Amino acid sequence: MKQQMVAELRQIVGSSYVMDGLEDRICYSFDATFRDFPPDVVVKPGSVGEVAAIVKLANRYQVPVTARGAATGLSGGAVPVKGGISLVLTRLNKIIEIDTANRLAIVETGVITEDLVTAVNQAGLFFPPDPASAKTSTIGGNVAECAGGPRGVKYGITRDYVLGMEVVLPDGSVVELGNKFDSEMAGPDWGMLLVGSEGTLGIVTKVYLKLIDKPNAKQTLLAIFSSLDDAAQTVSDMIASGTIPTTLEIMDNLTIRAVEEFLKVGLPVTAEAILLIEVDGSMASIGKQAEHVMRVCKKCGATAIQAASTPEDIDKLWRARKAISPACGKINPTKISEDATVPRSQIPAMVRRLREIAKKYDLKMVIFGHAGDGNLHPNILSNKHNQEEMARVEQAVEELFQAALDLGGTLSGEHGIGYMKAPFLKWETGEIGFAVGKKLKDTVDQQGILNPGKMFDL
Amino acid sequence: MKQQMVAELRQIVGSSYVMDGLEDRICYSFDATFRDFPPDVVVKPGSVGEVAAIVKLANRYQVPVTARGAATGLSGGAVPVKGGISLVLTRLNKIIEIDTANRLAIVETGVITEDLVTAVNQAGLFFPPDPASAKTSTIGGNVAECAGGPRGVKYGITRDYVLGMEVVLPDGSVVELGNKFDSEMAGPDWGMLLVGSEGTLGIVTKVYLKLIDKPNAKQTLLAIFSSLDDAAQTVSDMIASGTIPTTLEIMDNLTIRAVEEFLKVGLPVTAEAILLIEVDGSMASIGKQAEHVMRVCKKCGATAIQAASTPEDIDKLWRARKAISPACGKINPTKISEDATVPRSQIPAMVRRLREIAKKYDLKMVIFGHAGDGNLHPNILSNKHNQEEMARVEQAVEELFQAALDLGGTLSGEHGIGYMKAPFLKWETGEIGFAVGKKLKDTVDQQGILNPGKMFDL
Repeated sequence: MKQQMVAELRQIVGSSYVMDGLEDRICYSFDATFRDFPPDVVVKPGSVGEVAAIVKLANRYQVPVTARGAATGLSGGAVPVKGGISLVLTRLNKIIEIDTANRLAIVETGVITEDLVTAVNQAGLFFPPDPASAKTSTIGGNVAECAGGPRGVKYGITRDYVLGMEVVLPDGSVVELGNKFDSEMAGPDWGMLLVGSEGTLGIVTKVYLKLIDKPNAKQTLLAIFSSLDDAAQTVSDMIASGTIPTTLEIMDNLTIRAVEEFLKVGLPVTAEAILLIEVDGSMASIGKQAEHVMRVCKKCGATAIQAASTPEDIDKLWRARKAISPACGKINPTKISEDATVPRSQIPAMVRRLREIAKKYDLKMVIFGHAGDGNLHPNILSNKHNQEEMARVEQAVEELFQAALDLGGTLSGEHGIGYMKAPFLKWETGEIGFAVGKKLKDTVDQQGILNPGKMFDL
Repeated sequence: MKQQMVAELRQIVGSSYVMDGLEDRICYSFDATFRDFPPDVVVKPGSVGEVAAIVKLANRYQVPVTARGAATGLSGGAVPVKGGISLVLTRLNKIIEIDTANRLAIVETGVITEDLVTAVNQAGLFFPPDPASAKTSTIGGNVAECAGGPRGVKYGITRDYVLGMEVVLPDGSVVELGNKFDSEMAGPDWGMLLVGSEGTLGIVTKVYLKLIDKPNAKQTLLAIFSSLDDAAQTVSDMIASGTIPTTLEIMDNLTIRAVEEFLKVGLPVTAEAILLIEVDGSMASIGKQAEHVMRVCKKCGATAIQAASTPEDIDKLWRARKAISPACGKINPTKISEDATVPRSQIPAMVRRLREIAKKYDLKMVIFGHAGDGNLHPNILSNKHNQEEMARVEQAVEELFQAALDLGGTLSGEHGIGYMKAPFLKWETGEIGFAVGKKLKDTVDQQGILNPGKMFDL
């Protein structure tokens, strides 16, 4: 039966876009998490029509379909845990239109985030969501996981920019959901259900995205602290003080040292923590905002504050931020990256809990992340071949999720649920919420074709 | 059976909060639209527990439940077209918390919009959505219809400020949906389904709302035009030019004259159209923005531009804007207020179509609205007792919806669907989208208890 299905897939997309050899299946068996689940076959459609035909075929053969973009995901959303078809959407990579009059971009799902950002920038507008993986991640993947990024503090996350979308439903029919224009609102916004749904409710093939004004000016600051608690308190005080920076990133000492070792950009390796802060806005307002930021940092105990004055200095700081993941990867081979998120006022408490957890389970944990919107990235650096250590990691991760929920937070700020957090989703939704989610999933996807084993399907 | 149910309702909420006399039923039979559908009984619960008990009771008796706030709705969302229980939520009117540290308000569903705006303002923050009915409309109603308002141009509409909510599901169970904090994102955002759902999927009892920074300064301008087309073109050019005003309201000559007759505030009654424009932001940026706005207005043919310099002048202009509805009500008793919305670039074309439609059906139509986000409010002034005229109104409304959809727009920018637009919803969603909507509604509300006869239940 598999050979027959593969032959039909070749007819739909052409032979060169169907791969079922072992080496190809292995290449598509993982994302940026640490477990492998090979699909039975990898298919790369070139149009929404082909996506629809593949989904119809999958219904006929009762085979799972798991959509995949660039697979930079940190929760395992694109990994085909039940095998079947890995539906790779990277060929749908056209920026269809940047409509400056209506401040809207229409893009295919496989467009790379940075390509869109660049095109929008050239058109004189601004698309804020900036996941660290922007150079490779696709818009479809950002939508599927509701990706965020440093600018989330001020500008919000992917869902704040999704107006509508074209979707292939689990039965292979094609529908437009949501609102093409910002001000539309006719009935419940079904489109929003697809944001963060990891391809469990439909395959997003085209997205309508909201664009905004470009800020005229920005200022980047580096605040240095001799205590992680002081840095965390600064974040909380900053937000409460009424000035929302564009970015408000925290890095603890272990993170600073890892990055400096990796990149040699002159980070202060003896600091217990740094905050990387950017403010933007009109030329006129920037100076005042920066002054305010410095005032709050000093009040909370910053030992030094540096303003990056040249484009090179600014670039250096951001390269440092973006190098955290590869830098940590060099320390230990297996990096468990979490994104449990708490109310901004609870950042100091969460940082304390994280350090207790790392100590309790004797694990190497770096703490960094988008502190400004409560979205910390505790990363546990370990080795997946050390089973005893991985057992401790597992316990620590559970405790970390519980800590976030205890503090009024959430399992995920931007990485999604994937196979890694699916077992914990019920802690967050509660029994009733989970039951509603499951009932809706079962209604939309009656055959259970789309990305089984994720979200509400355990 | 009805008497038995009413008796049980009295046990749940107390006798003084259950009304089934004819005069009471008539009082709760209508909203700001023009048709009457009396409920069998009116109930005013005082807690989420009472709401849940009522919904469970309704399931037992198989009786419809239609939620109602202040009933200022313009599409008929709160009107119980199939009778049953009118569930009046105005007693749930507590502002539970304004959390400045996390920039979040937690309110019960029956809080009046203006009460929240005032409280948030006193806390030093800003809640932008400002429907014209803000003095009476409730937050729950705003969520149910996804209300907008003049500030939508720059700040977005209700859905942009809803983080999460407490909901009584159709079976009477209570669940928290969505995200309490801005940066949370764990799985599909079921909460967003409730926004704009008119109580067809659940009864919202508590809402978590996002708050933002208060702008430091604002400037209000009045631009006068001798041609409605010029004013419409100004709107389109303004948005495309990259300066987004806080408000960008259009009023045609008939509207201007109606308001001036009603209010005597010195509006230019010979002008073919005016634009009421406000810009806000930092003190430093305001002057530049206002200059830019004036430049665009002049380029597009404004014959005069006045800057309101005193708080009294500003207040006078906004009183004029908010008086449109009552002023028009004085001309003719029945006011059919539509909110078909088009892409901003299509505002000039839509204005032309509206005038053609008014002429074709020989109807008195005033044109005003939130032009800046494409959300025009053509109001047809008629008399519901004139059947021949009402037949023409009906045809005109249909043609008006078709025009909006032809131009890439939507049936509703902010008034919702209600009983008035339900027959046209399929034009917008398409057959497949409608079928999905219906399937999801039937799944969530298996007994069809909540607000039957609306949205996907025709």
